[in-house]
Amino acid sequence: MLIIGELINCTRKKVGEAAEKRDEEFFKDLARKQACAGAHMLDVNGGLPEQEVELLSWLVDLVQEVVDIPLCLDSADPEALTKALPRCKRRPMVNSITDEPARWAMLPALKEHRPKVIALCLSESGMPTGVEDRVATASRLIDRLTAEGFALDDIYVDPCVMPIATGSQGKSLLTTVSQIVAKYPGVHISAGVSNVSFGLPVRKLLNESYLLLLMAHGLDAAIVDPRDPQLMMNITAAEALLGRDANCKNYLRAYREAKLGDVA
Amino acid sequence: MLIIGELINCTRKKVGEAAEKRDEEFFKDLARKQACAGAHMLDVNGGLPEQEVELLSWLVDLVQEVVDIPLCLDSADPEALTKALPRCKRRPMVNSITDEPARWAMLPALKEHRPKVIALCLSESGMPTGVEDRVATASRLIDRLTAEGFALDDIYVDPCVMPIATGSQGKSLLTTVSQIVAKYPGVHISAGVSNVSFGLPVRKLLNESYLLLLMAHGLDAAIVDPRDPQLMMNITAAEALLGRDANCKNYLRAYREAKLGDVA
Repeated sequence: MLIIGELINCTRKKVGEAAEKRDEEFFKDLARKQACAGAHMLDVNGGLPEQEVELLSWLVDLVQEVVDIPLCLDSADPEALTKALPRCKRRPMVNSITDEPARWAMLPALKEHRPKVIALCLSESGMPTGVEDRVATASRLIDRLTAEGFALDDIYVDPCVMPIATGSQGKSLLTTVSQIVAKYPGVHISAGVSNVSFGLPVRKLLNESYLLLLMAHGLDAAIVDPRDPQLMMNITAAEALLGRDANCKNYLRAYREAKLGDVA
Repeated sequence: MLIIGELINCTRKKVGEAAEKRDEEFFKDLARKQACAGAHMLDVNGGLPEQEVELLSWLVDLVQEVVDIPLCLDSADPEALTKALPRCKRRPMVNSITDEPARWAMLPALKEHRPKVIALCLSESGMPTGVEDRVATASRLIDRLTAEGFALDDIYVDPCVMPIATGSQGKSLLTTVSQIVAKYPGVHISAGVSNVSFGLPVRKLLNESYLLLLMAHGLDAAIVDPRDPQLMMNITAAEALLGRDANCKNYLRAYREAKLGDVA
């Protein structure tokens, strides 16, 4: 399970304010804390208006001063990506390509630097509504990316999680994930799960539970807050339960390192 | 989601000792605590050697003095069932019929009293090993029970959870559940999940997580310890996420009743 830390996101108010001030210690701290909590990769979003091209590269350089895990560049700006991708010391990921024609302006940068790519199930016709349109969008994205030379193993489909408070897409997304995995064996499935709980109380509980429901259908990557210990424990347990942790080795190591909470 | 409290089980050492002494307060307390924690039904196992026929009925009478939820009679003894079933004030469940010929000695009692029935995926050939034998056993049990007049809605298939420490059946059980639900729409799926964690540390975490993985594939009943607040919160969240809680009504009620833990 690839755990992508979500906290370095300048579209969040407090993070954006620190970015405006170019507060180096703030971002170094966010990077260290997430790596220490078990993130395998850090999402880096420098999306301040008019500043993204410079800010994304500033963040990439800064974060790499303090942690040695790869980065997920969260941007759709071709110029920002062109400038930031070559600065990455380890093979990065880009978050995200979609089925909207304007997004494909990033294709030359992707082809030059060959990062891993998140393929988000969004199309020209707007927000997805069910299983069929999501699977159709995912198929178009996968087919086009593989035609451009990307391996299935480099593609992370994001089914586009929506708030359950505004409908009942929670279940249909599980079917979507199953169908994509069955149609394209070897492709990865990633998601930003926290959208699911928008508008409801105790969001942490919903996010933690939804991640397990998605894992049960094949999700193997997620953009999450790795500082949530219950979430991280759930992931460790689910990997063992799903046979993705041979002989429960990681589970037992986490136990010895006292990362599984109070012993029941 | 039907939550069946598992604690009144005389095959457990401490409970068995209380049963030997016919300690009324001990059992009344266990019954009250589980009902209060949110159990919808209580499993009652009076399996002490040579005492089951008398003990099961004693437990049924005693538990019904203090709680008004239905009981799940956990016995394969036709005489014990014949004596205990008519004492149940609310429609009970029987745990369990299997595909072993000796078990079907309980059929006359089942046909006379028409309880709900747990159909456990165990056959003459021993412990199940994969998807195919479990689905085949489930099919034989469902076909025979429906031929004997039981509605699909009265049948709870238990796929027979095994310890992941001794193999990797965790994932195949999810496939089993999906296939049974697809083949027999309307049948229920129940499980005693705690077997899954046998031999591993922090069993509570594995049980909590496995229940969610099974729910993602269609499980709608479980024999569990309802006094585990994380487990109960996970179930409430998963029901909302799976569209089994219209407008998140139960989730929001649990929140108002402060049953969703510390607010994040």
